[in-house]
Amino acid sequence: MSDPVICGVDFDDFVISMEEFHGYRSPGILFGGLMIEASLHELGDTPYLNVVTETVVCLPDAVQLLTPCTIGNGFLQTIDWGKFALTCYDRLSLLGVRVWMNPDALGGYPLVRQWFERSSHKKEKLPFEALAAEIIVAAKEAISQRPVHLHRSLKESQSVPTGRCPGCGESYPLHLGPACPACGDQAYYFYQTPTK
Amino acid sequence: MSDPVICGVDFDDFVISMEEFHGYRSPGILFGGLMIEASLHELGDTPYLNVVTETVVCLPDAVQLLTPCTIGNGFLQTIDWGKFALTCYDRLSLLGVRVWMNPDALGGYPLVRQWFERSSHKKEKLPFEALAAEIIVAAKEAISQRPVHLHRSLKESQSVPTGRCPGCGESYPLHLGPACPACGDQAYYFYQTPTK
Repeated sequence: MSDPVICGVDFDDFVISMEEFHGYRSPGILFGGLMIEASLHELGDTPYLNVVTETVVCLPDAVQLLTPCTIGNGFLQTIDWGKFALTCYDRLSLLGVRVWMNPDALGGYPLVRQWFERSSHKKEKLPFEALAAEIIVAAKEAISQRPVHLHRSLKESQSVPTGRCPGCGESYPLHLGPACPACGDQAYYFYQTPTK
Repeated sequence: MSDPVICGVDFDDFVISMEEFHGYRSPGILFGGLMIEASLHELGDTPYLNVVTETVVCLPDAVQLLTPCTIGNGFLQTIDWGKFALTCYDRLSLLGVRVWMNPDALGGYPLVRQWFERSSHKKEKLPFEALAAEIIVAAKEAISQRPVHLHRSLKESQSVPTGRCPGCGESYPLHLGPACPACGDQAYYFYQTPTK
């Protein structure tokens, strides 16, 4: 069987690009690429493509490698639900196709199943080549899809008024409150200034 | 003045890569690249580099273009605070350097100020070349920085037990509750299946 073309990208080039961007050859990005391919094929012509992933793991990088949608340009959104699923949609029509991995379809694909279920076991390193070959075949059975209609576009299209935070003096969106989140009670991740 | 090298990337190559990845030449990504450069320069050798941005606009793409950190590999986190700031840190030592744009330093840089304050006005298209030239000079004055000590690493390093959702049958992280978020009350963004 010849290697597939995924969203217009040759398999070998896709593997190289994921190594460069993501840091390693990722089964999740390969499967994600096949999911995006399936979604876009079903969706058809989509002049205003947006994507939302339901996990922050791997799938966002597949989207960023294969579509014009990135986190920083706002056309890719991520929701941290830990679900191996994504939706490509048109932000004007709000019509989309959600695609996901169907675990019931993995019976004949032991490596894919082992990889997909790894999160509940000790993580084992599976050989990428063999796993990739199985993923390419399994994808036809294991990618489920259905059309969806979003309630609203997830991309912020309105600019918001900003002002200076009375605490730190930095600019922030005024609708967030009288002080910026970093000066309020949301500074949960940092900081103290290190003491020498 | 010669064009700068930003995180080891020639200015011209950086502009090309941002057009390819982000979709257009972005002043925010250019300024963000100079912020990353400043943070890494101050931080020094960082074998376990992670980055957190305090906005989802532009800065995440600067990080993904110039460092090994991406959304999908978990080394880049974004916090949607609408603040033009980011922190590079070492996820083992938890020592980092936060960098941000100081609006008080923009007095001598009318284009940069106009661009940075655009969110509160009607968005105007500024000429990229002139703005970029001003950004490169302004960065030396307008990037503020301070060392920070994070309370914890933001990258999830533990795998979590997963199981089947009784609603949809898909896999999800069991700690999120008895059903997956998409089947619970968090399905705020989608879906109804479109009616024909």
